[in-house]
Amino acid sequence: MNNTQVLLTKRPQGLPQSDDFSVVESPIAKVRDGEFLVENLYLSLDAGFLNWMGEDSGDEVLPAMRLDAPVMGLTLGRVVQSRNPEHPEGELIMARLAWEHYSVTDGSDFMVRVDPQWPHPLRYHLGILGDTGMSAYFGLTDIGRPSPGETVLISAAGGAVGSVAGQIARLRGARVIGLTSSDEKCARLKEELGYDAALNHKAPELSRRLGEVCPEGISVYFDNVGGPLLEVVLEHIVEGARIPFCGAVASYAASSPMPGPSNLFQLVVHSARLQGFMTHLQVDRYDEARQALSGWLKAGDVRSVEYVHNGVEQAGRAFCDLFAGRNFGKSIVQVAEDPDG
Amino acid sequence: MNNTQVLLTKRPQGLPQSDDFSVVESPIAKVRDGEFLVENLYLSLDAGFLNWMGEDSGDEVLPAMRLDAPVMGLTLGRVVQSRNPEHPEGELIMARLAWEHYSVTDGSDFMVRVDPQWPHPLRYHLGILGDTGMSAYFGLTDIGRPSPGETVLISAAGGAVGSVAGQIARLRGARVIGLTSSDEKCARLKEELGYDAALNHKAPELSRRLGEVCPEGISVYFDNVGGPLLEVVLEHIVEGARIPFCGAVASYAASSPMPGPSNLFQLVVHSARLQGFMTHLQVDRYDEARQALSGWLKAGDVRSVEYVHNGVEQAGRAFCDLFAGRNFGKSIVQVAEDPDG
Repeated sequence: MNNTQVLLTKRPQGLPQSDDFSVVESPIAKVRDGEFLVENLYLSLDAGFLNWMGEDSGDEVLPAMRLDAPVMGLTLGRVVQSRNPEHPEGELIMARLAWEHYSVTDGSDFMVRVDPQWPHPLRYHLGILGDTGMSAYFGLTDIGRPSPGETVLISAAGGAVGSVAGQIARLRGARVIGLTSSDEKCARLKEELGYDAALNHKAPELSRRLGEVCPEGISVYFDNVGGPLLEVVLEHIVEGARIPFCGAVASYAASSPMPGPSNLFQLVVHSARLQGFMTHLQVDRYDEARQALSGWLKAGDVRSVEYVHNGVEQAGRAFCDLFAGRNFGKSIVQVAEDPDG
Repeated sequence: MNNTQVLLTKRPQGLPQSDDFSVVESPIAKVRDGEFLVENLYLSLDAGFLNWMGEDSGDEVLPAMRLDAPVMGLTLGRVVQSRNPEHPEGELIMARLAWEHYSVTDGSDFMVRVDPQWPHPLRYHLGILGDTGMSAYFGLTDIGRPSPGETVLISAAGGAVGSVAGQIARLRGARVIGLTSSDEKCARLKEELGYDAALNHKAPELSRRLGEVCPEGISVYFDNVGGPLLEVVLEHIVEGARIPFCGAVASYAASSPMPGPSNLFQLVVHSARLQGFMTHLQVDRYDEARQALSGWLKAGDVRSVEYVHNGVEQAGRAFCDLFAGRNFGKSIVQVAEDPDG
């Protein structure tokens, strides 16, 4: 039985390219005492992992990835062979493993057991009921806190976080406007996710168009991208605006530092705040967030949108697609057949 | 009896220059029915007023200033002649009037009566017990909220707001570090205001020096200036840092928009927030803040530092000095003799 692995072959310079990655077939490592073998069913693709692909990129969260080793990533898999009594065969886990079909681990990697009775598709653990759904929930409910009738603007509105944040904002009675990178995705935001309006941020005169769809100004800007969009949005914020600041795809992808907005003073003029957050710090409140989202999912008030790539060998290309804005919804690679369906 | 007035002769381009202003002697306008004559005792100098000196600078707060008219400003004065029963002779008021010895008004300008029993020097109304003291109080207690032992960094640390904010932070048990623009002011911060350390931000290698005096990182950055210092400070913030964002002398003074910090993503990485505020929005809580500050002043725990210029004809030059960083403490022009002393 062979393993398929995706290696980091070159460290990305700016935007990642397909040939930064390579696919290899190799024998599965032997499972030693205390270890167990995980068959990865899904990989989660997250732009943030680019942070650990650079040479000097290690930080307090994770070390820098090694060259010619499988790319680190978040996976959802099943224990298929075990010499570790704490992780018996058949157990489902979400873990910080790698872009490979099979992983051998001693359980010391970050790892969460998945309840087999979970009433939703397994892959939701990597998206709407995982870190990106949590980011949407906490960013919107703790920082954004829109009141009914307020205007909420969301960047990368069709992305893994944005697609959930927009739906939560709608449930809270806000007017929800999305920024995204194509007319096609604008249409999907309105039709599939219930956005009140959507703008293609690549088309000309964004500020004027934003003013037109937000005639009363922007109360909450859920910023999933960072970079130059913030400057445009700051022209339209209202008194007391809240800007949950979550991702920064724009900065990840820049090969040199990008200047920040020249009009940050708008935060002063409007007594507004720009508040960064890292969702993993809220881990003690994941249950609260999961229960809320699970309830909305069951009631049909919120839907999960996914962009599924088939086959682990696609992971490199699919990761690059994230930065090209090709995805709509949470990007996932399906590695093996999901027993759930 | 003549009036001395300081007119706006030219609209400042970038930094204000002395010759943007001119001094004229003119007869005092006649007091008509419903009006009263105020002898201004003090003028408050505030960098923010540059905002209304430009041609297209009017906003919801104030209209653009008129050319060849007396410069608008905040003054503290005494009613010396009245044909308005609501404002009898002898009344003390703080008002949005102008850079002139005498002003005629019908009372429709922004105006606050001053309690003659006030136990502090009158001029404190324009500084530590006025808007700048309020900014320091609300920015530090509502947004900064330092815990004992946390490191609080203050920019323009010897300025009207910074000099008060630093003292409040010290009273709350924080380690207080000041950024200022000369070695002489660094010494005064430590000797007169009790800062634990102070750095001249114009000397080389600010980031390295900041790291040395803040070995545990910066929990609160009270940003009174905006501009490039923020980028340096963001390299040193800790998890959950708070950045009360108050003034932006750096932006006022720039003739073209200055790019913002290229590392705003540090706010995400550290779950930190940058929160703008306008103190006049807290006007219903001024009493709370004044009582706290008044108590500290009486106990000798906090002192008011002022930079007093003598004579209304000095106002233009003194205003320019604000941007050159010459002031230490609140800049005030004394126009006439203060009956209080």
